[in-house]
Amino acid sequence: MTSLDIPEGFEQLLEIPVATLTTIGPSGYPQSSAVWFLPEDGAIKVSLLDINQKVANAKANPKGTYLFVDAANPYKTLELRGDLSVEVDEGVAFLRRQLAKYGTTPEEFGRGLDGRVVLTLTPNRVRTWG
Amino acid sequence: MTSLDIPEGFEQLLEIPVATLTTIGPSGYPQSSAVWFLPEDGAIKVSLLDINQKVANAKANPKGTYLFVDAANPYKTLELRGDLSVEVDEGVAFLRRQLAKYGTTPEEFGRGLDGRVVLTLTPNRVRTWG
Repeated sequence: MTSLDIPEGFEQLLEIPVATLTTIGPSGYPQSSAVWFLPEDGAIKVSLLDINQKVANAKANPKGTYLFVDAANPYKTLELRGDLSVEVDEGVAFLRRQLAKYGTTPEEFGRGLDGRVVLTLTPNRVRTWG
Repeated sequence: MTSLDIPEGFEQLLEIPVATLTTIGPSGYPQSSAVWFLPEDGAIKVSLLDINQKVANAKANPKGTYLFVDAANPYKTLELRGDLSVEVDEGVAFLRRQLAKYGTTPEEFGRGLDGRVVLTLTPNRVRTWG
């Protein structure tokens, strides 16, 4: 799909700054963390370093989930489950787009630019609550 | 363990009203949702109906994760990974304790009291961020 099909009234949950991304680790436990993200091309993407555990998890088990919680109402949530893929972020072009959302640039960001990859979740299940 | 061993400065994250619980569904995808919870006996417990999908997931694959996000700072998080167990909530005694945290009672709660179970996550891994 080229645009995310989000039920009416829940689109604004994609505008929160931080969402919870869960992958599954080598021991089979879910691993959840708060991440920056950018919705793009019908998917949810996040810039990570290739040494990040989430990247290893995604390559070994490409099933993931995002939970978006309304900042004003923690009982209102949007969950996107889907398949994960990892691509090299050539020239940190994606990182640049993601950081623009947060008002910064790769140069100002001050974290590693080498080994940047894009972790993409392409949703196949959308659930809402609240 | 009988008390949760939480790194200093992160104990207050257990005082947030709503946390993200992730189980793994029958198709292998993580399933995340926002839940009420009660820390008790070194574990994190939540009252659910036995027909809840999270209960079925826990019985089939007893590996779960909670993520607690600081209400004032979404970059500060506490993650507890561990093993899940399910017990019948006799006389809704646990539900009563959980609801007391939220200022209500099973009688006032207005949701089903039949088929109440306690889903318990006993942590074996504690991670903090921020």
